[in-house]
Amino acid sequence: MEKRFSQWKKQCVSKLDQSKKGSVDEDITHVVSLLNGCEEYFTTSSCSGRIILIDGAPESSEVHKRNCVWLFVSHHKCKSDELVAALASSSGDVVMKFEPFVLHVQCRRLEDAQLLHSVAINSGFRNSGLTVSKTGKIITAVRSTHGLEAPLSHEGKLLVPHEYIHFLSQTANRKMEENLRRIHRFYQNLLSALPIEKLQISDPPISHGAQETPHRLETEEEQEKKKTSVYERRRKRELHHQTDSFHGDGSVPELDDCLDLFT
Amino acid sequence: MEKRFSQWKKQCVSKLDQSKKGSVDEDITHVVSLLNGCEEYFTTSSCSGRIILIDGAPESSEVHKRNCVWLFVSHHKCKSDELVAALASSSGDVVMKFEPFVLHVQCRRLEDAQLLHSVAINSGFRNSGLTVSKTGKIITAVRSTHGLEAPLSHEGKLLVPHEYIHFLSQTANRKMEENLRRIHRFYQNLLSALPIEKLQISDPPISHGAQETPHRLETEEEQEKKKTSVYERRRKRELHHQTDSFHGDGSVPELDDCLDLFT
Repeated sequence: MEKRFSQWKKQCVSKLDQSKKGSVDEDITHVVSLLNGCEEYFTTSSCSGRIILIDGAPESSEVHKRNCVWLFVSHHKCKSDELVAALASSSGDVVMKFEPFVLHVQCRRLEDAQLLHSVAINSGFRNSGLTVSKTGKIITAVRSTHGLEAPLSHEGKLLVPHEYIHFLSQTANRKMEENLRRIHRFYQNLLSALPIEKLQISDPPISHGAQETPHRLETEEEQEKKKTSVYERRRKRELHHQTDSFHGDGSVPELDDCLDLFT
Repeated sequence: MEKRFSQWKKQCVSKLDQSKKGSVDEDITHVVSLLNGCEEYFTTSSCSGRIILIDGAPESSEVHKRNCVWLFVSHHKCKSDELVAALASSSGDVVMKFEPFVLHVQCRRLEDAQLLHSVAINSGFRNSGLTVSKTGKIITAVRSTHGLEAPLSHEGKLLVPHEYIHFLSQTANRKMEENLRRIHRFYQNLLSALPIEKLQISDPPISHGAQETPHRLETEEEQEKKKTSVYERRRKRELHHQTDSFHGDGSVPELDDCLDLFT
């Protein structure tokens, strides 16, 4: 199993990037780098979070979602003027969505997946979960409950006043801010939870892969080149323990206690 | 581990129902009964899906969600008049949500959780996942990507015309219909996937437990009383194979193939 995981990781390194965008979203390159620099993990897809406008056929079901046109995509905050401008080209049913951070990570052993899952839950990503395939692939999916999905037009006709679109953009932007806070918490909690002797930290972040598409990882040479001192990283982590916390309430819960979510 | 699972299940049977509603939602009693009648599983919480109006403090963050007032809850389709009437009593920021079916099931062994997970994914619940606690509790969470979340008012003032609320209610109702179709598919796929010799099928469904609260299970005597013939059930399943399918495309994929979601 151990050998198999290494082979999978190696294959992932050698694969060409299949994403449209061709790069990991900038707000999560440090998270992706940290995990890919770790022997126990490699990321398979990610999205930092996005605000989107989707134009679909009227009353189309979920099944036909693939025929939709994307009128607007932003991985950062948006302005309502941008949304209004994008809406002008619509002829179907437009829906505005905020989709939070999502990350899929293949894990060497079940206990590695459990650790990652507990960190995700403690960082606010409460819809996270594992997948264990029959071939032995173990994936932790990091997911949030945090969303927004509001119809804006029907058959090309706007259903709401411009003031509503302005209000929605503000709501989505607040959710984007909260999303970034959770990503930050997730990264800090990862640094605290990962076994320090196994960390192969690489800065700056890798620049491949994106939402729902395989990540291309750094080659071993690239990682070696970027590796920073474990002792330097340890100093940073000690500092973090003085200034940050798991839940923003000043306390750092024991990871041992984290997985008992359903007791 | 085997013995421990039986103890946990027994404890769950003896616990008092902690839900507000005091019963499993009627659209999923058959699903809950089927799983609880099975040696490998017991359900710990569920919701069949709901349309809700939540009145929160203006610009309140996710953190303070607990202070919200629920103006409207329906586990079935809604009428826009009901929503408009409920909105009249609002003084804060009202959000309308459609929340799909959610189910948490404790599983005896990892392979039982894998089986349940594969059935969930194949039935359209693509955000499903496992949790494995350090104490050995294994939970499969059945979750959908299917949602809706639209702000309706700010500081007690309506942001949208009544026509929009009408459109939203129709959208939510369509999602509720699709949700029920997925629940039906999940139940049929469960019947096909569960090892028949271990099924302890109980009809009519149990009547305890609800969203995010522990389920009270039937006692062994209650189950014994309601147990139907395995042969009768087998006949029904054979019929199902002729008339239904996993993906609604006429084909029944092999479960062995189902878990390789990320290959």
